[in-house]
Amino acid sequence: MIIVLKPNTSKEQLILFKASLEEKYNVTVNTWVGVESTVLGLIGDTTQIDEDWISAQEIVESVKRVQEPYKKANRKFHPDNTVIELPTGQKIGDGNLCIMAGPCSVESEEQINYVAERVKSAGAAFLRGGAFKPRTSPYSFQGLKSEGLDLLKGARKATGLPIVTEIMSSAHIDMFEGIDIIQVGARNMQNFELLKQLGKIDKPILLKRGLANTIEEWIMSAEYIMAGGNNKVILCERGIRTYETATRNTLDLSAVPVVKKLCHLPVIVDPSHATGKSWLVEQMSLAAVAAGADGLMIEVHNDPKHALSDGAQSLTPDKFDEVARKVFALKKAYDEIMSNG
Amino acid sequence: MIIVLKPNTSKEQLILFKASLEEKYNVTVNTWVGVESTVLGLIGDTTQIDEDWISAQEIVESVKRVQEPYKKANRKFHPDNTVIELPTGQKIGDGNLCIMAGPCSVESEEQINYVAERVKSAGAAFLRGGAFKPRTSPYSFQGLKSEGLDLLKGARKATGLPIVTEIMSSAHIDMFEGIDIIQVGARNMQNFELLKQLGKIDKPILLKRGLANTIEEWIMSAEYIMAGGNNKVILCERGIRTYETATRNTLDLSAVPVVKKLCHLPVIVDPSHATGKSWLVEQMSLAAVAAGADGLMIEVHNDPKHALSDGAQSLTPDKFDEVARKVFALKKAYDEIMSNG
Amino acid sequence: MIIVLKPNTSKEQLILFKASLEEKYNVTVNTWVGVESTVLGLIGDTTQIDEDWISAQEIVESVKRVQEPYKKANRKFHPDNTVIELPTGQKIGDGNLCIMAGPCSVESEEQINYVAERVKSAGAAFLRGGAFKPRTSPYSFQGLKSEGLDLLKGARKATGLPIVTEIMSSAHIDMFEGIDIIQVGARNMQNFELLKQLGKIDKPILLKRGLANTIEEWIMSAEYIMAGGNNKVILCERGIRTYETATRNTLDLSAVPVVKKLCHLPVIVDPSHATGKSWLVEQMSLAAVAAGADGLMIEVHNDPKHALSDGAQSLTPDKFDEVARKVFALKKAYDEIMSNG
Amino acid sequence: MIIVLKPNTSKEQLILFKASLEEKYNVTVNTWVGVESTVLGLIGDTTQIDEDWISAQEIVESVKRVQEPYKKANRKFHPDNTVIELPTGQKIGDGNLCIMAGPCSVESEEQINYVAERVKSAGAAFLRGGAFKPRTSPYSFQGLKSEGLDLLKGARKATGLPIVTEIMSSAHIDMFEGIDIIQVGARNMQNFELLKQLGKIDKPILLKRGLANTIEEWIMSAEYIMAGGNNKVILCERGIRTYETATRNTLDLSAVPVVKKLCHLPVIVDPSHATGKSWLVEQMSLAAVAAGADGLMIEVHNDPKHALSDGAQSLTPDKFDEVARKVFALKKAYDEIMSNG
Repeated sequence: MIIVLKPNTSKEQLILFKASLEEKYNVTVNTWVGVESTVLGLIGDTTQIDEDWISAQEIVESVKRVQEPYKKANRKFHPDNTVIELPTGQKIGDGNLCIMAGPCSVESEEQINYVAERVKSAGAAFLRGGAFKPRTSPYSFQGLKSEGLDLLKGARKATGLPIVTEIMSSAHIDMFEGIDIIQVGARNMQNFELLKQLGKIDKPILLKRGLANTIEEWIMSAEYIMAGGNNKVILCERGIRTYETATRNTLDLSAVPVVKKLCHLPVIVDPSHATGKSWLVEQMSLAAVAAGADGLMIEVHNDPKHALSDGAQSLTPDKFDEVARKVFALKKAYDEIMSNG
Repeated sequence: MIIVLKPNTSKEQLILFKASLEEKYNVTVNTWVGVESTVLGLIGDTTQIDEDWISAQEIVESVKRVQEPYKKANRKFHPDNTVIELPTGQKIGDGNLCIMAGPCSVESEEQINYVAERVKSAGAAFLRGGAFKPRTSPYSFQGLKSEGLDLLKGARKATGLPIVTEIMSSAHIDMFEGIDIIQVGARNMQNFELLKQLGKIDKPILLKRGLANTIEEWIMSAEYIMAGGNNKVILCERGIRTYETATRNTLDLSAVPVVKKLCHLPVIVDPSHATGKSWLVEQMSLAAVAAGADGLMIEVHNDPKHALSDGAQSLTPDKFDEVARKVFALKKAYDEIMSNG
Repeated sequence: MIIVLKPNTSKEQLILFKASLEEKYNVTVNTWVGVESTVLGLIGDTTQIDEDWISAQEIVESVKRVQEPYKKANRKFHPDNTVIELPTGQKIGDGNLCIMAGPCSVESEEQINYVAERVKSAGAAFLRGGAFKPRTSPYSFQGLKSEGLDLLKGARKATGLPIVTEIMSSAHIDMFEGIDIIQVGARNMQNFELLKQLGKIDKPILLKRGLANTIEEWIMSAEYIMAGGNNKVILCERGIRTYETATRNTLDLSAVPVVKKLCHLPVIVDPSHATGKSWLVEQMSLAAVAAGADGLMIEVHNDPKHALSDGAQSLTPDKFDEVARKVFALKKAYDEIMSNG
Repeated sequence: MIIVLKPNTSKEQLILFKASLEEKYNVTVNTWVGVESTVLGLIGDTTQIDEDWISAQEIVESVKRVQEPYKKANRKFHPDNTVIELPTGQKIGDGNLCIMAGPCSVESEEQINYVAERVKSAGAAFLRGGAFKPRTSPYSFQGLKSEGLDLLKGARKATGLPIVTEIMSSAHIDMFEGIDIIQVGARNMQNFELLKQLGKIDKPILLKRGLANTIEEWIMSAEYIMAGGNNKVILCERGIRTYETATRNTLDLSAVPVVKKLCHLPVIVDPSHATGKSWLVEQMSLAAVAAGADGLMIEVHNDPKHALSDGAQSLTPDKFDEVARKVFALKKAYDEIMSNG
């Protein structure tokens, strides 16, 4: 961490400030006195240093981190890719393309079982489906809740596909015991109390990027989970909010290679929520594969025009067959191209 | 709600769609057949209609809401300003400028009592202070938690100032029983489970605008609380995330008159979090008054440079004296000017 | 165009308004009178109707376009892809991947000739290079100007590669006579006087998307050029401005399929300016191919660390060889996958 | 400027890089060698140093400016406020509130003369009106052009009000000789060729902030004009583009005190374009005064519902009378409050 002091800082202020830094944060402080300004360089573990506290000091002009503020999620300290393996053997981040597919909302046994069969036969490795639904309006369908979780488990039993579903409150954690992967939605990415609770359990967490969150904040939310002891975090890019209205959100595919450089966790992409339009899902799925994503999360509904939520962005099972065929083919070509350097 | 159908919609499709709308949503559907497109107009209570569902229909070109999607928060159905009154008599939204001031975090008894005395003598009507702190990093100070709540109550006892403090999880609601106003932070504005729980209690809720949330989404989150039966919601604009980096966030003061046109709830402004810089607080507080805000939430710390969080944006008690004096004077002038039409 | 009138509109106001619409814009107006509101539907060519004018009418609640505001660029009226062909035979938009590569700035004869040879041998179809440089600071290198144009022509002569270079003022158009493709930079996307002048010449125009411009505004700027008579417009996505700071801009790859649905012009992608980081160029080039782009614009510099501008995002010729090899291989695989449907 | 080098930088690389910096930019380079990284501090005039060039160096980890990249516009080197005085005596930035008012577009002699009389009698110091109109659509009204300039001069003759009008191309500069203040619109804020030409003339330039431009970029565009020798620049905040759609743009009032801290030029605010809605103009004008603005630019039209452009945001002359009365009254109160400190 580099701290630039104001030009008029006195010698006494400098000595006191250095002493307080060394004591408070257990770092070594090097000083470089220039003509117009004095610069301090902090050596040691600076992840716990509060930039706000530094900035608030009267003598400080500006602060600059050299190290990232995260440790456990940082690729520097964990150069290998994290591969997340389920007790049932499925892997995420092992180089294969992992597809999680299913309806936005679980609606009925018939629906979820049918969709599960179809996405399985198309090559999906996981069944996704919402039981607790975050909806902008209190008057919209809020999900089947615990009944929805049971239906998901039924579909798992029928197909063998492990299930991914969203949690909306730390008060619900017990209900999610039988779930394979717990999803944290974009709106809860900085629900820190929830993240802390998820850090205490031993189950993969799929952490979606918040609508207005930087990549650094996103990795910091993964760090929250990991700081609690749970290292099984999967990151999911799902579009950020911009001024553009032609798509629901703006899919930030450059986030995939950026996260992979900074962090060792797997990164998947959700083109359905990112674009909000079913006709864009195929193209953006292909683009996500070529951007290096470890997987895709895609909404598939037996009957999108009767879906209780987000029908506009869901694929039919037939269209999903086609998309899956294309993305697996592109992934194969991509891997060959990349391995030939 | 206006629905534009695709040019090639058949008569049969039209009849079926109209019937399903009338049945599903209990609305009357008027049809207007043009040369290039057919337009449907839905009459009745359309707040419960799911735009996503409409958009997903094969024959639908586009949808446009004419009515706002909120009812209880809607000024159309509640033309008078809501005035929120505490059992202890303080009012918010009654035409007076209500200032809530205090430290970002409660740090000690001495600190909170001293700041409480100072902000009270400067004219603040409420003491604010964080006991549970949402922090981007798991390694930053997370607040004194229940101990912090007790210290706030102590400061209330000493000064008579009612207290405002942030809740971070619905699991904590019981702990907040003795708190006067419960704050929902920007990062939890769409923590719908928390909003639902807060709808069930009888206590004012201060709802901060999310960093990337539209005014409509913000009012919809108020609607969540109100739909549960709690009409005591205070909205707080605290800056939105944009590309500008000179300030922490971009304070959207036009949100004040826009919300006041659409909604009958009181609106206050937090210039401290919006700008992130103590030297901007005075100027933006004055601007907020002239934008028509019902109140201000301002961070005041006895010793900003030793504050455990957000010191960079806190005022000293002496500076707060000056700011309060100026904003009350401007409010007085503003009221005179506005009442003379 | 659908116009929703305010509930309290009188019969007289309605009649007058309809008459003024029909007279002013030569459209037919259909009226649909509902219980709570009256809706007007305008039939005819509405591209010339000014939404601002409509919105300003006292009796208007809101306006909604059903048709896009552009005609010449609209795929509805021109279903086939536009293929732009140069007199020297090169084509853009014909299904092949067209790569335009070269340095940000032309710096010397030796430099531009060397880079031209290298990008040609790697498979680039065009040489790009800046002679007039838009720079945020007046103290930064502003380009070699007309000398730079001459050096580009020299490199064309040496290699046969047609050249693409940026114009910054309509006053310079004469100087660009010998240039093959004239580029309009992101900062000039809404320099309407320049667009009008470029509409009068017979030469392909590469129109970059503005940093804060919607896809609709971007196509409208193409329409400006086309309205003047020049239909040879190539669109180039180069990242939009968001709150994310890990990349220089946020590359909006979903813009590629969205533009292709709305508009018949070729779309290329510039991953160099979009990301601002050379290590991201390969990955985002591959993603752009899989998003369906017609081409790529890539910065290549013989010696990025001595480049006079934008060195941080330039590839070395050796790295460009590798990137080109990979993107052509991926394009081949992509085409096979897509043609097998 | 502080440059952090990569951990593995060799001694030779360090020596060569320092030498190249000192030679290229005529600065002194101080070195501070830490355990994990080496930091360079550059002393001297760093405004001409290209951050891109620095970042492109292989051994550079990151760069941080300590000094602002602008000189002539920098308050550090010019602590007093710049007051711009016209030959006819009007001043901007002298502590009084300067109002520029008039129609978006000049439409006829009768219109402009009538509006000019009305805004004059309400207290406006300048008449604004567009003769060259930047319009998103080529099919929208583009302004009366030189005829419009003549009408403006006629209105000036009739009322004595100096005139402010927008230029759209450096090719038009000669036509603007008789204009008092030349406006550069938001879309041309980084039309650097135009800025350079305006730097050569001796006339105040009103520079609007671009829709997606940071405050630093805005001041840099002022620096372009000043670098050419013309120091008479007035900055105008007019809203930035964000995701919010309730207003046309988001008015960034915190930009007023931020610019005033960094820069000595006058800053005015345009609430009409910022909000796009006439009913928000009064409230945001008052807020702008309380934010410390030196002036306001307000659209006034004799008949907004028949205006040829931007009618939705124009005030009637009667409403403008009221707004002007209120803002002058608030300005008076504000000045008294601020001078009593």
